[in-house]
Amino acid sequence: MNFSSKLLEDAVNEFSKLPGVGQKTALRLVLHLLNQEPEEVQSFGNAIIKLKEEIKHCSICHNISDNQICEICSSSKRDQEIICVVEDTRDVMAVENTSQYFGVYHVLGGLISPMDGIGPSDLFIDTLVQRVTTTPVKEVILAISPTMEGDTTIFYLYKRLKAFQIPITTIARGIAFGGELEYADEITLGRSIVTRVPYENSLLK
Amino acid sequence: MNFSSKLLEDAVNEFSKLPGVGQKTALRLVLHLLNQEPEEVQSFGNAIIKLKEEIKHCSICHNISDNQICEICSSSKRDQEIICVVEDTRDVMAVENTSQYFGVYHVLGGLISPMDGIGPSDLFIDTLVQRVTTTPVKEVILAISPTMEGDTTIFYLYKRLKAFQIPITTIARGIAFGGELEYADEITLGRSIVTRVPYENSLLK
Repeated sequence: MNFSSKLLEDAVNEFSKLPGVGQKTALRLVLHLLNQEPEEVQSFGNAIIKLKEEIKHCSICHNISDNQICEICSSSKRDQEIICVVEDTRDVMAVENTSQYFGVYHVLGGLISPMDGIGPSDLFIDTLVQRVTTTPVKEVILAISPTMEGDTTIFYLYKRLKAFQIPITTIARGIAFGGELEYADEITLGRSIVTRVPYENSLLK
Repeated sequence: MNFSSKLLEDAVNEFSKLPGVGQKTALRLVLHLLNQEPEEVQSFGNAIIKLKEEIKHCSICHNISDNQICEICSSSKRDQEIICVVEDTRDVMAVENTSQYFGVYHVLGGLISPMDGIGPSDLFIDTLVQRVTTTPVKEVILAISPTMEGDTTIFYLYKRLKAFQIPITTIARGIAFGGELEYADEITLGRSIVTRVPYENSLLK
């Protein structure tokens, strides 16, 4: 692209580094910002800089937090003895949005993926083992996506944790609400029949 | 969404103000930035702030520029007597990318759109008339998209400019390269037959 301004080009290049944003989209976003009030653009830029500079990760669960220990880990309303293990912050938010879970979390920071060169030591797995060793834990829930990488990670975590004699559970696999049986794949449908539950347990609280 | 951090929430909210970016996309972009090096995030934020603070608009053609007068308006290689009138910076870039035009530009800053409350006085139309009045101009090309608003703007510009006895042209409407005749709409196909050109003129230089 021929830019009429170096400043414009710089901003477009920065935007087009974002995932899923090409040069044309980047230009559209930058021109949109240029049409905004100076204060708004300033606050946009500052929010990003401040985010990176000041954000912390909870020293217990590794979730993104404004403090050394996050709100969930420091809450007396949450059951500190049930740990839900998730891939990243987005999954914490997804589980929180259900309003069905009242324990605490452990954010792995990714999944085991030999293809991408991510091994167990690149994830917060040792600190999870340490939590289980040093604090009383009555259940570990593995709330990890049922993908190739997810299943590998679940299997590895199970091997590391089973010696502690704590119940280790995974979230139920099955037909999603609103999903049609005839379009479900055989593995999901098969598992959902094998792990069927009494009707009264299947209702949301 | 339940954010575990106010800083995260602020950044996501800023991103989701951008056109076509919802909360989920915003979160994905912000988490991507969080995984980058601090210097990269800093340069991203600064590029945006600097853009808005330091960018100028050419005082002749109103295109985005780093200087008071843009490179095209100050270039001796460009024919300063042919003015191509466009909607915005993106259209300047589109025409420049063709490498087929060697005159100068005039950026209107939008199109006449009564539905959005944009009238002729909100656009750089008076300065165009002034350019035509005060400097020698041998042709005005209206390179404006053939939409409802575009055609309205073209008609208005034609009315304002015709008294000056300068040739006023519009870009050719027709079947795009690679376009299929059978899928073209009747207006485009009809106009492209009426305004047919000798074969040797239809080739790109």
